[in-house]
Amino acid sequence: MPTISNYTFDEISIGQTATYAKTIGEQDIVQFAVLSGDANPVHLDAGYAATTQFGERIAHGMLTGAIISAALAMKLPGPGSIYLSQSLRFTAPVTIGDVVTVKLEVTDKNERRGFVTMHTEAVNQDGKRVATGEAQLLAPKEKLVLQQPELPTVTLST
Amino acid sequence: MPTISNYTFDEISIGQTATYAKTIGEQDIVQFAVLSGDANPVHLDAGYAATTQFGERIAHGMLTGAIISAALAMKLPGPGSIYLSQSLRFTAPVTIGDVVTVKLEVTDKNERRGFVTMHTEAVNQDGKRVATGEAQLLAPKEKLVLQQPELPTVTLST
Repeated sequence: MPTISNYTFDEISIGQTATYAKTIGEQDIVQFAVLSGDANPVHLDAGYAATTQFGERIAHGMLTGAIISAALAMKLPGPGSIYLSQSLRFTAPVTIGDVVTVKLEVTDKNERRGFVTMHTEAVNQDGKRVATGEAQLLAPKEKLVLQQPELPTVTLST
Repeated sequence: MPTISNYTFDEISIGQTATYAKTIGEQDIVQFAVLSGDANPVHLDAGYAATTQFGERIAHGMLTGAIISAALAMKLPGPGSIYLSQSLRFTAPVTIGDVVTVKLEVTDKNERRGFVTMHTEAVNQDGKRVATGEAQLLAPKEKLVLQQPELPTVTLST
């Protein structure tokens, strides 16, 4: 079974980086719509989306937020982190088939309070920035190596 | 077929409010894990979660972010908005069965650039604030009344 591990506060250094990537499939957009309740046709209806300034279906901005949050939780600092805050500026649309790569970089450590500040940026396959911002997390105190729970398969049916 | 409509920039006034609620089911947390890739056991494994400071499975923080984004996209300003930025401060955990209610309030309008600033807050069924922050959106210029696309049913299978 695959495991996930973390970096404790003491193991984290300013300038440390991590990346995490996900390809945005059509089903991801539909699943985000179901999960959030955001059923706007710009995300779901190709015919309508073609009439907008985007010209095609776009992913929900906060789907990129979800991927950034997963990068923090899975990669750096990883399990045992507590998410305190996140800022997001959405800078370009994400469309079906795009590969969103999250780049994390530790920019500050607060020794007294045990939290870390990270620069969080998401770029597409052309290197274009689609979202940028900053996260603060309470970093793990203890080293954890956890079995990664198995995820189910999701099936969509109309 | 249900429709969704928006408030144009000119129709939006400072102090205007809207709410949007969602009950967080166990399947929502699993779906968020699949969609984002965040398979941390604190979200998925009741046995492990019982050993953490939370004592039980908690929802991913950014699931609340997703619900806030849906409130903006579906309620105020609604369709045709362009999401520019969102800040989120996570202030309390969300657990299975919680009813998360998003409260939106327009706090500023930028006449020159056509964008609105909104206070975004999410509370649980006890009125406890689980997340707070601010959103900026380019508000729609045109009134839209759109047919809401039908969403599929999601089935999870191991």
